[in-house]
Amino acid sequence: MIVYPGLCVGLDPDILRLPAHFSADPSSVAPFLTAIVEATRGVAAAYKINTAFFEQYGHLGMDALYLVREAVGDAYCIIDAKRGDIGNTSAAYARSVFEDLRADATTVAPYMGSDSVEPFLAYEGKRVYVLALTSNRGSADFQRLQVQGQPLYLQVMQTALSWQGPAERGFVVGATHPDELADIRRLFPDAHLLIPGVGAQGGDPRQISQANAGGSALVNASRSILYADQSERFAEAAAEEAQQIVLQLSNS
Amino acid sequence: MIVYPGLCVGLDPDILRLPAHFSADPSSVAPFLTAIVEATRGVAAAYKINTAFFEQYGHLGMDALYLVREAVGDAYCIIDAKRGDIGNTSAAYARSVFEDLRADATTVAPYMGSDSVEPFLAYEGKRVYVLALTSNRGSADFQRLQVQGQPLYLQVMQTALSWQGPAERGFVVGATHPDELADIRRLFPDAHLLIPGVGAQGGDPRQISQANAGGSALVNASRSILYADQSERFAEAAAEEAQQIVLQLSNS
Repeated sequence: MIVYPGLCVGLDPDILRLPAHFSADPSSVAPFLTAIVEATRGVAAAYKINTAFFEQYGHLGMDALYLVREAVGDAYCIIDAKRGDIGNTSAAYARSVFEDLRADATTVAPYMGSDSVEPFLAYEGKRVYVLALTSNRGSADFQRLQVQGQPLYLQVMQTALSWQGPAERGFVVGATHPDELADIRRLFPDAHLLIPGVGAQGGDPRQISQANAGGSALVNASRSILYADQSERFAEAAAEEAQQIVLQLSNS
Repeated sequence: MIVYPGLCVGLDPDILRLPAHFSADPSSVAPFLTAIVEATRGVAAAYKINTAFFEQYGHLGMDALYLVREAVGDAYCIIDAKRGDIGNTSAAYARSVFEDLRADATTVAPYMGSDSVEPFLAYEGKRVYVLALTSNRGSADFQRLQVQGQPLYLQVMQTALSWQGPAERGFVVGATHPDELADIRRLFPDAHLLIPGVGAQGGDPRQISQANAGGSALVNASRSILYADQSERFAEAAAEEAQQIVLQLSNS
């Protein structure tokens, strides 16, 4: 049996892009995203809450973040926060995402090394996605630099697998790099991957599913699902777009 | 005239370490830190709010964050958040720190490259500290790797200076690496540095001031100042500890 990547729906609220019948106000964020979550519950394998898009609205945004976390409920919940700091600071961030926000998984930035990530890895039963090769243009600046005969992102993956802690390790590999994704799959067939960048960022679901070669993975799409339609049938349109991506992921 | 590094007081609240007359509760954070800020106002050149230590307390922690930001007032305020993500996400984080929280400066993680940092650099009149060589043990994992004949942290500094945007560029260089700090000063005499790791983390102010060789810099101490005394004279003790560090910084 071939395992196809699951779809992760990214929750990145932008009040300037909401359907026309919502007011362009942070108080619209929770009702909008709750409708998206309810409409896509049957098709999404996971939801990814992007903290930046809530923090940008200050107190009202944080209120919305907690309401959206409630709406996600028992579905698999990734808090995409890309934190990373010295040990006692990372321990505080880990408490925030795993205890206060009850995430099943989170993303972390690797630049500060072992003791910046191990406080997250200390949480048994959780999953920690370390940034490897990200979907953006700037990923070329450092992630592709050659270190010890290989690109830095492979060095990061190897090193991160040696870090201590019972949490499951995963890696972020952007959907905009299908060739490297295929290479990563050959080198790390068992690694769980979070693959963002499908849809608005240009990654192609069929190509990604092929490159992933049946490995354990979640493919994330955000804007193409959230803003699929500007009318009152936005949630239905979001579910249709999500189903379309799932079909493409399983039809590679 | 020799310019000595200024002292930055790091605001990293831990409710388990508050003076005994405070209840070990998030509602104690704002009154505790407000007293610290008031007592050290004459000696601190800047304050650094570490977002993790507020986020860990959820809603109550975020309430405290806004109150502490008010207490810092017109003093130079660094929001130490170490954010970094794809462009539209970093733009949201930049709005959070520079618009909602009215920071004068912030810290960013460089791993995702140019377009993950440029949304912060777009803010004229603000300062953006890019992580270079951090104070923690894990800094050896990636930051010291040789790339193109030099350690990655120097590559990061050179590359970051080429990124677009009117904001001032600064760099984080840990106080626990005085030899590398001296090298960095020779290579980048004009760079503004944020030097954390004095006090509880083991960095020595005299050594740091010497290695910094009169360059523009802020030296950050957090725990050694905040938790200088467990009695009702904690704020006075914090001010004495802060004055002691300033004396050591100017007496190298």
